[in-house]
Amino acid sequence: MKYIRFSKNDEVMYGIIEGETITRLNGDFMSGEAQPLDETFSLGDVRTLPPVMPGQVVGIGLNYALHAEETGKPLPEEPMMFMVSPTSIIGDGDKITLPTLEHRIDYEVELTIVIGKQAHKVKKGDALSYVFGYTISNDISDRDLQQKDGQYTRAKSYATFKPLGPVIETELDPDNVQLKTTVNGEVRQHSNTNDLIHDVRSIIETVTDVMTLNPGDIIITGTPSGVGPLQPGDEIVMEIQGIGTLRNSVSAE
Amino acid sequence: MKYIRFSKNDEVMYGIIEGETITRLNGDFMSGEAQPLDETFSLGDVRTLPPVMPGQVVGIGLNYALHAEETGKPLPEEPMMFMVSPTSIIGDGDKITLPTLEHRIDYEVELTIVIGKQAHKVKKGDALSYVFGYTISNDISDRDLQQKDGQYTRAKSYATFKPLGPVIETELDPDNVQLKTTVNGEVRQHSNTNDLIHDVRSIIETVTDVMTLNPGDIIITGTPSGVGPLQPGDEIVMEIQGIGTLRNSVSAE
Repeated sequence: MKYIRFSKNDEVMYGIIEGETITRLNGDFMSGEAQPLDETFSLGDVRTLPPVMPGQVVGIGLNYALHAEETGKPLPEEPMMFMVSPTSIIGDGDKITLPTLEHRIDYEVELTIVIGKQAHKVKKGDALSYVFGYTISNDISDRDLQQKDGQYTRAKSYATFKPLGPVIETELDPDNVQLKTTVNGEVRQHSNTNDLIHDVRSIIETVTDVMTLNPGDIIITGTPSGVGPLQPGDEIVMEIQGIGTLRNSVSAE
Repeated sequence: MKYIRFSKNDEVMYGIIEGETITRLNGDFMSGEAQPLDETFSLGDVRTLPPVMPGQVVGIGLNYALHAEETGKPLPEEPMMFMVSPTSIIGDGDKITLPTLEHRIDYEVELTIVIGKQAHKVKKGDALSYVFGYTISNDISDRDLQQKDGQYTRAKSYATFKPLGPVIETELDPDNVQLKTTVNGEVRQHSNTNDLIHDVRSIIETVTDVMTLNPGDIIITGTPSGVGPLQPGDEIVMEIQGIGTLRNSVSAE
């Protein structure tokens, strides 16, 4: 099932999407109790919103071997976690704004876990039962600040630095889906989650060993190799097999 | 004014505290509209709760020169920010639980900024008008994980790792207050916020240049020198002049 959050004439609505047709729900799909209404919209007639507004955004660093290699850093033995501000989130079709043109600011496609129920000290074997579904995020990162700070929070938390969406897919095998990024039509990232160093189950076990995750919280699971800088005017298209396509253009501040 | 959040017979309440006497309010003091009721409690008869449950907890690393020196790291040119999970917060009097006895897990007293209104791209000169008040936090940190991960999120986000309270003081000069930590009655940290490398105004400017802070969000501003490890059975008392005293004991899991 693909869930979408959208607006029409500034009213925020929730729906199920099949092809280009959205069937409206009578409430937030995250509640588990939303029912379809007798009201449909065409995808082209609405504004796509981030499918969820998480309380917590947890990131996993260096989680694909080839990407760890391109950064020149050693592979982490365990999922290496950081947090970014949810106020950086934008939706499919929204503009990415570069706060400066003097830093290298990169795109990063990432399979994104959306938590469905409160999770603390969850074991690998149970981990997938805490997942509501999966979406796509672009973990935009200011490399100069990331290098300067050591900590990743600032480099990854600017407004518009977390495009998220377009939908949440609830039926997905997270261990074997292709990810692809194109910039202005050229393929830049192309990998598969079967190359993850730490898989979705391990990530959930490690993160919830530390903190409690609540419904709607997200974990962005790391990016494969092929990251590169954004320029004003770029069109970034990120595709994850089975979920869909997240499109954003880039502008200067 | 000193605000307190507390419970009595499991009912959560808000109040103003003078000496040992709490005057109950008819709602959350953060709303700015709460009025005193004709109902008082003695501090000894209630359970103190964390004065606020923030959506975002932003930390500032290495912000006192002597502490930076004791860690052996270079001074950051700008406030160096990280985030931790709000699910690590506990109140005054609650137990700190050590998840392992095999790591060095340290206490850190920190002046804590409580944000009063939505803040984005705030300049130094206006910064204090976005502050609701100040409280105390103990930024408990697993040094082994901090070293291993590089990122601070995991090391500082375990359940019970952020004692917060006991009250929020709205009238405080954040640039000149003493901070003190005693462990089992021995003074271990003793400093003044006039030794902060980056002061409260600069911190707010730097953090809100990146992210939007919402009412109730907190910034923990860094710890002075004298950090040290916790052991089961320890009694930790943290005092900030003008705010009060945050007391917690330590237990093994």
